[in-house]
Amino acid sequence: MAKVRVHNFSISLDGYGAGTDQGLDHPLGVGGNRLHTWALKTRAGRRQVLGKPGGEEGLDNDFWLRGDEGIGATIMGRNMFGPIRGEWRDDGWKGWWGDEPPYHHPVFVLTHHPHEPIPMEGGTTFHFVTDGIEAALAQAVEAAGGQDVRIGGGVATVQQYLRAGLIDEMHVAIAPVLLGGGERLFDHLDGGAERYECVELVGSPAVVHARFTRKE
Amino acid sequence: MAKVRVHNFSISLDGYGAGTDQGLDHPLGVGGNRLHTWALKTRAGRRQVLGKPGGEEGLDNDFWLRGDEGIGATIMGRNMFGPIRGEWRDDGWKGWWGDEPPYHHPVFVLTHHPHEPIPMEGGTTFHFVTDGIEAALAQAVEAAGGQDVRIGGGVATVQQYLRAGLIDEMHVAIAPVLLGGGERLFDHLDGGAERYECVELVGSPAVVHARFTRKE
Repeated sequence: MAKVRVHNFSISLDGYGAGTDQGLDHPLGVGGNRLHTWALKTRAGRRQVLGKPGGEEGLDNDFWLRGDEGIGATIMGRNMFGPIRGEWRDDGWKGWWGDEPPYHHPVFVLTHHPHEPIPMEGGTTFHFVTDGIEAALAQAVEAAGGQDVRIGGGVATVQQYLRAGLIDEMHVAIAPVLLGGGERLFDHLDGGAERYECVELVGSPAVVHARFTRKE
Repeated sequence: MAKVRVHNFSISLDGYGAGTDQGLDHPLGVGGNRLHTWALKTRAGRRQVLGKPGGEEGLDNDFWLRGDEGIGATIMGRNMFGPIRGEWRDDGWKGWWGDEPPYHHPVFVLTHHPHEPIPMEGGTTFHFVTDGIEAALAQAVEAAGGQDVRIGGGVATVQQYLRAGLIDEMHVAIAPVLLGGGERLFDHLDGGAERYECVELVGSPAVVHARFTRKE
């Protein structure tokens, strides 16, 4: 059975997965970049996000790498795909990630507004799903061809899947910053959090990794 | 200058310092006991809280011990002192901690309702302060005689002192549990969180320790 997994989802010590005022100027909200400092210090994260050599190996790098292992499709919310709200504009927006996004597999974007698929270089195609999280998951499982499906984010998307109990495993990275405001990961779960238990808690000076699985 | 410190303040991975429905049956709220499992595994915490021998030395034990070092007075909220709300009753309540509380110094309880001081065995006296957090701090600093003052809790009391920027150092212990509801430590701070920075992040499999200091 394909699993539904969350990886490298960074939150602050006060629980925010994104800062306030998300938009084109602040894709991750004000201060949101600070949540990902740890990832840019790792060899794999540095290469993937910045396209640069260098960086550290070890625990944090291993966690970063695990986020891509065995993943055949990704689901993300519309706000993670771009800053546009409401109807799509004819502006050629193709995501934040340039011509060759780091997915290299089908990506399903949750939206209320239909959009033609966008094929990108390197194997990524953005598909747009307008009939809800379960339909998106069914399409992603099909597209993953036996591999696992990753819920990429953002906060509201992970919350929807947690609330529905559809996530099997989740890795949250807790960064040593206080944002003071924004979107909290563990909010609006309507009891969904109680279905999960922390099975691993380990860290470096840069970040703490907490792994959760759904209880039987 | 005496410092104002918070130590061994346990929160869940979803940020709660106490569970829901605090009261006589659940002093720490539903599930709140699980926040303190790590402390009861340490040699010092086990002796102090349970009065029992055994337990582990090492990182967590060191953090627990640091909470008492150089502390000359403690401030706590009324709900940490007891389950009674509103007017005091003539019921002989002397706190949760038996005849010899583990403070061994003056303790100042924030309340809206005057109460005579309660001297206990072993050097603890409970004083009741009705004129606010700054008055309580002034009295505690005076009573501490050059040593530091500890803000004991609960959540609302720590928040008040954080909001006022009166806390110099804070140690938060993040336990690997999800409570799903209760009182969040990093809430209602009105920008108070931004005045603090995380200066240490370290952990054992049982708990993560985050230390904060106020920015200059």
